[in-house]
This record gives sequence, structure tokens and C-alpha cells, in this order.
Amino acid sequence: MSAPGVTAPKGFRAAGVAVGIKPNSKKRDCALIVSDGPATVAGVFTRNLVKSPTVVWSKGICDRGHARAVFVNSGNANACTGAQGLRDAETTAECVATGLGLCKHEVCICSTGVIGVPLPMERIAKGVDRCLENLSGEGGANAAEAIMTTDTVPKALAVDVQLSDGTVTIGGMAKGAGMLAPNLATMLVFLTTDASLAHEDLDAALRNAADQSFNCICVDNDSSTNDTVLCFANGQSGTAPLKAGSPDYDLFCQALTELCRDLAQRLVRDGEGATKFVTVEVAGTQTDQEAKTIARAIAHSQLCKTAFFGNDANWGRIACAAGYSGVLFDPNHLSIWMDEVCVMAEGRRTDYLEADAAACVAKSEFTIRVNVGTGDGRAVFWTSDLSLDYVRINAEYRT
Amino acid sequence: MSAPGVTAPKGFRAAGVAVGIKPNSKKRDCALIVSDGPATVAGVFTRNLVKSPTVVWSKGICDRGHARAVFVNSGNANACTGAQGLRDAETTAECVATGLGLCKHEVCICSTGVIGVPLPMERIAKGVDRCLENLSGEGGANAAEAIMTTDTVPKALAVDVQLSDGTVTIGGMAKGAGMLAPNLATMLVFLTTDASLAHEDLDAALRNAADQSFNCICVDNDSSTNDTVLCFANGQSGTAPLKAGSPDYDLFCQALTELCRDLAQRLVRDGEGATKFVTVEVAGTQTDQEAKTIARAIAHSQLCKTAFFGNDANWGRIACAAGYSGVLFDPNHLSIWMDEVCVMAEGRRTDYLEADAAACVAKSEFTIRVNVGTGDGRAVFWTSDLSLDYVRINAEYRT
Repeated sequence: MSAPGVTAPKGFRAAGVAVGIKPNSKKRDCALIVSDGPATVAGVFTRNLVKSPTVVWSKGICDRGHARAVFVNSGNANACTGAQGLRDAETTAECVATGLGLCKHEVCICSTGVIGVPLPMERIAKGVDRCLENLSGEGGANAAEAIMTTDTVPKALAVDVQLSDGTVTIGGMAKGAGMLAPNLATMLVFLTTDASLAHEDLDAALRNAADQSFNCICVDNDSSTNDTVLCFANGQSGTAPLKAGSPDYDLFCQALTELCRDLAQRLVRDGEGATKFVTVEVAGTQTDQEAKTIARAIAHSQLCKTAFFGNDANWGRIACAAGYSGVLFDPNHLSIWMDEVCVMAEGRRTDYLEADAAACVAKSEFTIRVNVGTGDGRAVFWTSDLSLDYVRINAEYRT
Repeated sequence: MSAPGVTAPKGFRAAGVAVGIKPNSKKRDCALIVSDGPATVAGVFTRNLVKSPTVVWSKGICDRGHARAVFVNSGNANACTGAQGLRDAETTAECVATGLGLCKHEVCICSTGVIGVPLPMERIAKGVDRCLENLSGEGGANAAEAIMTTDTVPKALAVDVQLSDGTVTIGGMAKGAGMLAPNLATMLVFLTTDASLAHEDLDAALRNAADQSFNCICVDNDSSTNDTVLCFANGQSGTAPLKAGSPDYDLFCQALTELCRDLAQRLVRDGEGATKFVTVEVAGTQTDQEAKTIARAIAHSQLCKTAFFGNDANWGRIACAAGYSGVLFDPNHLSIWMDEVCVMAEGRRTDYLEADAAACVAKSEFTIRVNVGTGDGRAVFWTSDLSLDYVRINAEYRT
């Protein structure tokens, strides 16, 4: 297998170049991923009403189900840019398509960065040209770098999956979000595979994977104007098409989900200003959805997150967040653990030692477990702390 | 009129003393308010499932409609303390009732502070005794001080209302919340009046006032385990009972609402770490409720708040928050103003000067106006910024 990332699967090339869209002109800010042959594509997009025109453009392409390339720029979100923004997205797609000898409707476009400023189209054109010149089967790493904004490390992964008739590879890269309560910072994820899947089967696999990964880091409701997850499948592994319901399809789905979960966790670990990685496990609800709602409330709570940052085993804030989550339960059956330390049982403080709980939250990674004692529902969320650096980063991001 | 606060209306005495419930033993931490004659009482309480036993106790008394006193301690929330917590609340009420020659069911109890630690009942008993010794018609200021936790200034107010048959006075005091997204910090508000109102009329007046004040600073859904607003009316002004629907009742309601709004705004101004006071006005929705939903999304957004802190006129974050609020509107009709500067019109950036918008958000107080261009709904919210000090305060609050 080649280097991890979107060029790991057969038949994908990529590039990442710097053309001065970001304030620091040395930082890569344009990426291109290309499948060398026909590919199916599926996408999951922001639910925000205020969508970037690039999202509108790419969603239209995913609805058709076939695409060969995606061009991404960082440094400018092309959001709240009106009709001009949609024209700019289309022009970019045309520019890429011309260079590759494709139709513009085979080219997805993604943008991330500042909102409300028109795309600098001369630089975008230059970015497209430079990407086309630099396309390479080893270009995944540069592409992963080019989509970063406030991320501190690129995130690129790949995994091989043994199917009954051969091996397929799934590659992926992601850029992060202000994970602490990501109501704006954009999440972009690009997945590639040389497996063969019809559009509807790829779409189902992607939705299922996203639901168990990117939607468990608090990004589904509070989504940005540009959040996008795209998955391309070009079938160049030579294995048979994967059909929903078959054992091979299930193996593929499982591997895709694991890869997405790994990327999602890397996004949290690299969340803006994050110093902690916290797993929130909720159980004992009537449904899994209820457990997810409680987990999200805790994972989103500013006061829980600042307590994590302060190494404060303040489980009262966890109980409180569960209480206002909107899920009905009997507070007299609420129990809370910090790693193995049970701090609250049946609605009240246990006789735990403060030092034991404090030792747990002082770690850079720990697990909060909550049980509401009603049923068998369960869910897991991943979150980070709310640090001084988070505020610094977001107070100073644009200016 | 005497000094502003809960002892401004006729027939109320109060006290605020220090007995070492707070870590700093010199800070006042127990307050008592007493009506010298019978009074009706109404209350608005947290909707959190995980309620302090003091909330359960006081709600039971408000349901009966009559009370003569409220005892408050700061430094310990008596929350997540199980059956012991309810017994402690009842014991405290008995202790106050004995001292005043009342029945325990005439004494409300409120607590604010750390969650999960049993009330230190010896100190509480001492606090009750010391309050009883210090009760005074000038005690409102000490009481306002005694209910503070992370507040930096006490909040006490009073207003006279001219009715057709005389003057009544309304007094009030409040303690604040981590206003930046107050999902836990407790809000306590105590209102007194020498007007005469039956329980149901007082209750309606209070609910209406709270809805236009404390519920517009983001405290209704994300409420703490202990949030409480209590209003006592003892009729000692000698004016006739105020009946719902009468012009005098409307005058009273209006004054009560104004006073609550003033207290609510003071809570925001003194929000944890707050350096800005921001008014969020939303209009053009189909209903007022929709406008409130959008205003709340903006007022809650961590990224809008950090931008305010950073003097960043980042209206893209405002558009984004409106977009994910859950209210349906056409983003192509979205307009945004920062004070008088229109930064976004009909879904896209105007040709405003960045310096003008920057000058607006650099001020310590400014207004964000949003219009979604659909209907006549409108709402206003008040919020603050998310500062470095907010994180410092909440990371270090308990330990």
C-alpha cells in the first residue's frame, strides 16, 4: 500500500499547492483529487440553510451520482456571496474540467475559510493550473495539507479491506473544526476507494459511516455553511461490485465506518485549542437516539468543557447537562463514572475520593460514562475541552 | 422611597450575613427576606430534570400561593444530594419558621453554588440565626450581596408605580449566571412588592415579565439545577387588589416587566468574563417565536461570542447561526446590521466599509439586527461575549 491518504487506493491522483488565498502565501491552499477513470460519488452535506454555493454545486453532482474530481480551496469559504458565489463555483469546475478533459458536471467543488468575501478567481485559476501540473499518485499528503485552516496537523488515513475476491483500499483525508462546539468551523472530509459500488450503495454506506463518526462529534445540527463529506469509488481494484446486503458489502461498510471514526477522532484531538480528548458514553435510555441526545448535551456543554480544561472533576455539570438535554429520565437513577471512578450513583454523590476523580480528569484522555437507568439505549460521543486557546483562536481568526 | 432592593416596598425586611459557607469566610453567604404580614407568592423555576431539592421545596410552596419568607444560601447548591438534600431544605425552612413564628410551609428556600456536596447544616443554622438577628428594613443591600457567587457587583433595584388609588413599590435583587451560554450557572431573582395581588394574578404577571426578560438572556432551555425567580406581594401599600384585565394591573405588569428586564440586562453585563453587552434584534420571521429562536441561536453561538470578544465584525458567523437555528427562511433575503451599518443585504455582503463595522463591534455595547424578510415576527435577546476570563473563571470555579 502507498502512503496513507486519498491516493492510497488504485487510480487516484492528487495535488496540493499554494497560490496565496490564505494570508500566509507559503501555505498550501488548493487541492485537487482526480480519479483516473469513471467513479461513483456520494456526499453528506451541511444542514445549514445558509449554504455555500459550493455545497449547492457539489450536492447537485452527488445527486447525479457520478464524478471524477473534486477541487478544494482553503482560506475563503465562498459563502454568503450570492449569485456571484455560484457562478464562481461553476467557473472553477469548468476550469478543472477543461484541464482534465471532463464535463464540468463531473467536478465537485469545496471551499473553507472566511465567509462573505468573493472568491479571488485569478488565484483560484492559478490554483487549478498548479494542481493539474502537480497531480500525482503520491499527492495525497500535499492535498491533506492544502485543506487545513486552523488545524495543526494534516489528517490522512488509508485501510485495506480483504474481500472474498480480492483486496480493496479506502483512503481518506479531513480538515477540522472548532470541535468544542463547532457551530461554524467547517469540516471537510474526502474519501476515495478502488472498490466498485453503485451510487445508491455507496450513498448508503457513507450515510451509515458518517452517522457513527462525524455525527458523533457534535457536527450534525450546528453545522457550518460548508460542511461536506464526499466519497469516490472507482472500482479499479478489479473486485466485483459491492451490493448492499452481501457479506463483502458489510465488510466494506465496517471498514469505511472505522476509517471515518478514526478521522473524526483525529478532528476532535486537533480541535481548536483542545488539550483533552474526552469520550462520552451514555447508556440506560429507552432508545439509542435518546442516549445520543444526552451525550451531545454533555459534549456541547461549555461548562463541562471548561471544567475538563481546568482538571476539575465537576460531575455536577455533567448531571446538569443530562438534565436539560430534553430526554426524560428519573434523576434518582442517574449514575456517572469518570473512567472507573463512580462519582454519582442513583442520583447522588458516592463516597468516591476526590483525588481519584481528579486524577482521571487530569489525564489528556478519559471517558465519562452516564447511565440513566431506564432502558437499553446507548451512544458514544467524542469531545474536547474548552481552553483559553480556543477563545484566542476564534477571537483572532479573521482579523 | 428607601434604598433600592427587596426592602424598598413597605413591610419587607431582609438581612445578609457571612457564616463560612463560601470558601472566603468574610463574604456574605446567607440571605433572608421576610414580609411582616401575609403575602402571596409566585415562582418561575428551572426546567432541568435534575433539580435541587430546594427547587422542589419552593415550588411546592408557590403552588400553595402564600409565603412570608425566603432563605437563600450561596456557596453550596444542595443539588444532586438525594433525599438528604430535601430533608436539609425542609430543616432549614423549619429553622427559619421557628425563628419567625411561622409555619414551615410559609418559607421558601434557595441555594446556589457547588453541586453534589451536602449542605453544611451547622453553618446554615448559624446563618439563619444571624439573619434573624440582623433583619432590617434597610437590609436589602446586604441580602443582594449575600446571594452573589461569581457576580462582581450586587444587583438591586426598585421602582414606584402610580396606580389610580395610590403608589405601590416593586423591589428586586438578582444574582447572575455565566451569561455566555448559561447552561449551569444559577440565576436567582427575588422580587417584592407592597401591591396587593391574588396568587393567580401575581403568577400571571410574573410569568409574563420573566418571558420578556430572564427568558431573553438564554436561560430558559439550558437552565441550571437551581434557577429560581420568586415574587412576593404583601399588599401593605394599602391600594386595592390588582385584578388581571384592569388598567392598574396592566400598569403594574408593565413596571414589573421593566424592572425584570433591567435586572436581566444587569445579569448579562456582569456575565462571567463579559467585556461586551450585545443586543440581538431579529425581525421578519413568520412568528415572534421564530424570531426568538434565531435570536437565541445567535446569542448562544460560541463563535459569534468569541468574535465579539475579538472586536471582529464577523457577520458570517451571525448568518451561519441564523441558518442552523432551525427556523425556515430564504437565505437570499437575509440581511444583517451592526448598529447602523448594513453588512449583509438580501443574502450577500454589501459594500460597507470594514472600518465602520469594526468600529461598531469595538464598542462595549452594540446591537446586531437581523431580518429574514418573511413576515412581521420580532424578538430581542441580550448577550455578552465569550472571553478568556470566562474560561478562566469556569475552569477554576470549583477547585
